[in-house]
Amino acid sequence: MAGIFSKIAAGEIPSYKCAESDRFYAFLDISPLVKGHTLVIPRREVDYIFDMEDDEIAEFQVFAKKVATAIKRAFPCIKVGQAVLGLEVPHAHIHLIPMQSEKDMLFSNPKLKLDEDEMKAIAGKIYDEFCKL
Amino acid sequence: MAGIFSKIAAGEIPSYKCAESDRFYAFLDISPLVKGHTLVIPRREVDYIFDMEDDEIAEFQVFAKKVATAIKRAFPCIKVGQAVLGLEVPHAHIHLIPMQSEKDMLFSNPKLKLDEDEMKAIAGKIYDEFCKL
Repeated sequence: MAGIFSKIAAGEIPSYKCAESDRFYAFLDISPLVKGHTLVIPRREVDYIFDMEDDEIAEFQVFAKKVATAIKRAFPCIKVGQAVLGLEVPHAHIHLIPMQSEKDMLFSNPKLKLDEDEMKAIAGKIYDEFCKL
Repeated sequence: MAGIFSKIAAGEIPSYKCAESDRFYAFLDISPLVKGHTLVIPRREVDYIFDMEDDEIAEFQVFAKKVATAIKRAFPCIKVGQAVLGLEVPHAHIHLIPMQSEKDMLFSNPKLKLDEDEMKAIAGKIYDEFCKL
């Protein structure tokens, strides 16, 4: 049975789309650490990122770089940080987080609560920048 | 002037080597969150990971995957987590952290203090597994 992230990538569950390609998909984390906190996933269901084949993980990282570039243009920051934890949802996902300080990457921080209009606006800004790349 | 990580990769500053290739180098974080916490860097001095060219970041990730596989064999864990923060040392580096829980990835956790013999033994175990891959 398809997991939640596969259904999101397939459009069967709604998400705030930030970027997409034929193999990968990016959308807003619904419990963001900061504005612009995005998840990048392969459309193919694979649990552990390091189980991906070399060509797939390489292409995944190149896609994530492009998404990170779009995030940085939409939400100016010092750098976009990257994290892969993955013990909660069994579908490989890269967190991309625009950082003003390394503390922005602390997953123990309280999450932001943003309303639907704000989430749509954030995703739209990132998507617009992604489309320009 | 070469930065500290470039000097480590060149062997000008000692480190606990875990893996290497012509373009990349891996060594133990001297302030590890858990045993096996490793840093992976390009030998070339580049500050922001997402400034790397597509082919370089792709190859970097494939090398990190190989190091993560060696870490998981040397230090059995649920998954090896990955993080890139990079606001402190201006040389791109991937943290690879063997996780028993997502809390192992919290950079606010107290760091382990391990003596030189233990650090050597940890790096040696990872290096041995890397060489078998």
